[in-house]
Amino acid sequence: MDLDLSRDAAALTADLVDVPSVSGDEQALADAIAGALAGLPHLTTRRDGNAVVARTDLGRPQRVILAGHLDTVPLAGNLPSHTEGGMLYGCGSCDMKSGVAVQLRLAHQLAGPSRDVTYVFYDCEEVEAERNGLLRLSRNAPELLRGDLAVLLEPTGCMIEGGCQGTMRAEVTARGARAHSARYWRGRNAIHGAGDIIDVLRSYQPREPEVDGLVYHEGLNAVGIAGGVASNVIPDECVVTVNFRFAPDRTVEQAAEHVRALFSGFDVQITDAAPGARPGLTDRAAAALLAAVGGTPRAKLGWTDVARFAVAGLPAVNYGPGDPELAHSAGEHVQLAQIAECEAKLLAWLTA
Amino acid sequence: MDLDLSRDAAALTADLVDVPSVSGDEQALADAIAGALAGLPHLTTRRDGNAVVARTDLGRPQRVILAGHLDTVPLAGNLPSHTEGGMLYGCGSCDMKSGVAVQLRLAHQLAGPSRDVTYVFYDCEEVEAERNGLLRLSRNAPELLRGDLAVLLEPTGCMIEGGCQGTMRAEVTARGARAHSARYWRGRNAIHGAGDIIDVLRSYQPREPEVDGLVYHEGLNAVGIAGGVASNVIPDECVVTVNFRFAPDRTVEQAAEHVRALFSGFDVQITDAAPGARPGLTDRAAAALLAAVGGTPRAKLGWTDVARFAVAGLPAVNYGPGDPELAHSAGEHVQLAQIAECEAKLLAWLTA
Repeated sequence: MDLDLSRDAAALTADLVDVPSVSGDEQALADAIAGALAGLPHLTTRRDGNAVVARTDLGRPQRVILAGHLDTVPLAGNLPSHTEGGMLYGCGSCDMKSGVAVQLRLAHQLAGPSRDVTYVFYDCEEVEAERNGLLRLSRNAPELLRGDLAVLLEPTGCMIEGGCQGTMRAEVTARGARAHSARYWRGRNAIHGAGDIIDVLRSYQPREPEVDGLVYHEGLNAVGIAGGVASNVIPDECVVTVNFRFAPDRTVEQAAEHVRALFSGFDVQITDAAPGARPGLTDRAAAALLAAVGGTPRAKLGWTDVARFAVAGLPAVNYGPGDPELAHSAGEHVQLAQIAECEAKLLAWLTA
Repeated sequence: MDLDLSRDAAALTADLVDVPSVSGDEQALADAIAGALAGLPHLTTRRDGNAVVARTDLGRPQRVILAGHLDTVPLAGNLPSHTEGGMLYGCGSCDMKSGVAVQLRLAHQLAGPSRDVTYVFYDCEEVEAERNGLLRLSRNAPELLRGDLAVLLEPTGCMIEGGCQGTMRAEVTARGARAHSARYWRGRNAIHGAGDIIDVLRSYQPREPEVDGLVYHEGLNAVGIAGGVASNVIPDECVVTVNFRFAPDRTVEQAAEHVRALFSGFDVQITDAAPGARPGLTDRAAAALLAAVGGTPRAKLGWTDVARFAVAGLPAVNYGPGDPELAHSAGEHVQLAQIAECEAKLLAWLTA
């Protein structure tokens, strides 16, 4: 199919929504986008699987990345799209084909932006990390992800959400000794011992540090617990799975050290970790973005793909049309006015 | 096959061991026992599936039950039996064909015992309770299990072990409210809440009451714990499985009331319960047994089939040859001298 990038962003969003692109099945949409961008002489386009990267190369002193994912969660009887009362309904309308439409509109219009721009469209954001197209790009062509600031056009209700917190999963194990439960004193109950792990969690005082002008909110929580051998056996092992959400002023290593110190009497295995991302709002490129967008930026507490840019040293923010609470719902929709607002503000930023 | 009940108890034990009778596969052994008992004119024999019951009916003022199970745990390369250094080795030698041999020897010799005797041989003791042959007998022919005292010839090393403790399983549930773990303060962590359940367990002071002259030892322990939704979700439920072992001076209902009171702030489901059994050692029949056997009786802390007699109002004890610690092991064996001792002492009791 052919995409007409000269249509307004709301109409373009509807066109994108009507090309189904559930994770793993993005090829038709990636082909359409690559085809449309190939017709723009001011851009150089690269393809990597179902990811598409288009760049200006004007020798500007700064380069910004505008990124968005093409995939959606599975359909829920919510295609084709329809417009009603100033809203566009349909799978992906909010998360995040309206953001992708804004990217495409900017790519179409900005033959000579004030900053060099890299437009990144990628696949498989809604599924397990190993399939993530942005992760694959960062391995296959890291040079394409270089720049001074990244903007991920995920739905934020047209608010700047800066950086993101890191996340870490650890298994904290209490050990004991098995015995028959009728003679429990011959053993040592590991579940009772795990009470000490829970005590640490219950009394934990999380930090709320300010990083680059935004306030984060850490958290340390049990997200799983398992123990038990049989109903007549004193258990010799109880594993508490702990999730630590940490502000972007800690590295993964520092976060791990903190968790190990908290549970120093126990066996601690870090089973998963993803770094946070500083918002970088005090940097020059981000400050100009903030000025163009207005409003009060807030810290992103959940982990998002902005952290993949942070690994490469780029500060990154989320900024896009759509209410994030509506993402993944069957009634998913987006205000048409927010699509237009987002396009206008980014256009103003990139032409100032 | 034919069993010769005139052989000595050690030889008879070897004969029994050499008829494999893993739970569910007791028919050959039950047939052999029923056949041998049918030749004894002083006994009336009844068959119920793979259980065999034989009784004297001499109008004695007291009736005692001698009971044993025919089944064994699965073979472990430990058949046929062999004798070495005064020990008989083989599957079931200890648990509990040596006890069954003593029952058969007594049945053979005691044409006119001082107390009427009911010999009970039953199937499926080593598997789930619903298949237990003694339970089935108590439903199909409760009149066969009436009497003044029951002796279960399980291995006790020729010590009287009196009664047994009751056992109860309860699921104690802490509830909370789900939230994304990056914004944990919007939820309430049920695993952290389960810390209060563990606090009750950790601070519990178990009773050690004396019942009919024996000291029991109660215990309240977590034997399982489970909670968790996903690694980024504050869990809304955590279930602690608690095992309460209670002395036979509490009924099941009283034990349940005690557990509910301890965890009064939580949802408590009693998922399984089995009553204890008083040892009845102060009763006349048991006192005479004690005098014949000698030694210091001890309380049975684990749950055993003696409780099935207690339900019918009979006190019951365990008394038999073999070290209970060897039960279910591949190297299972029994001291030949203990088989002879057990036979001699029970013979003395039932002829005095």
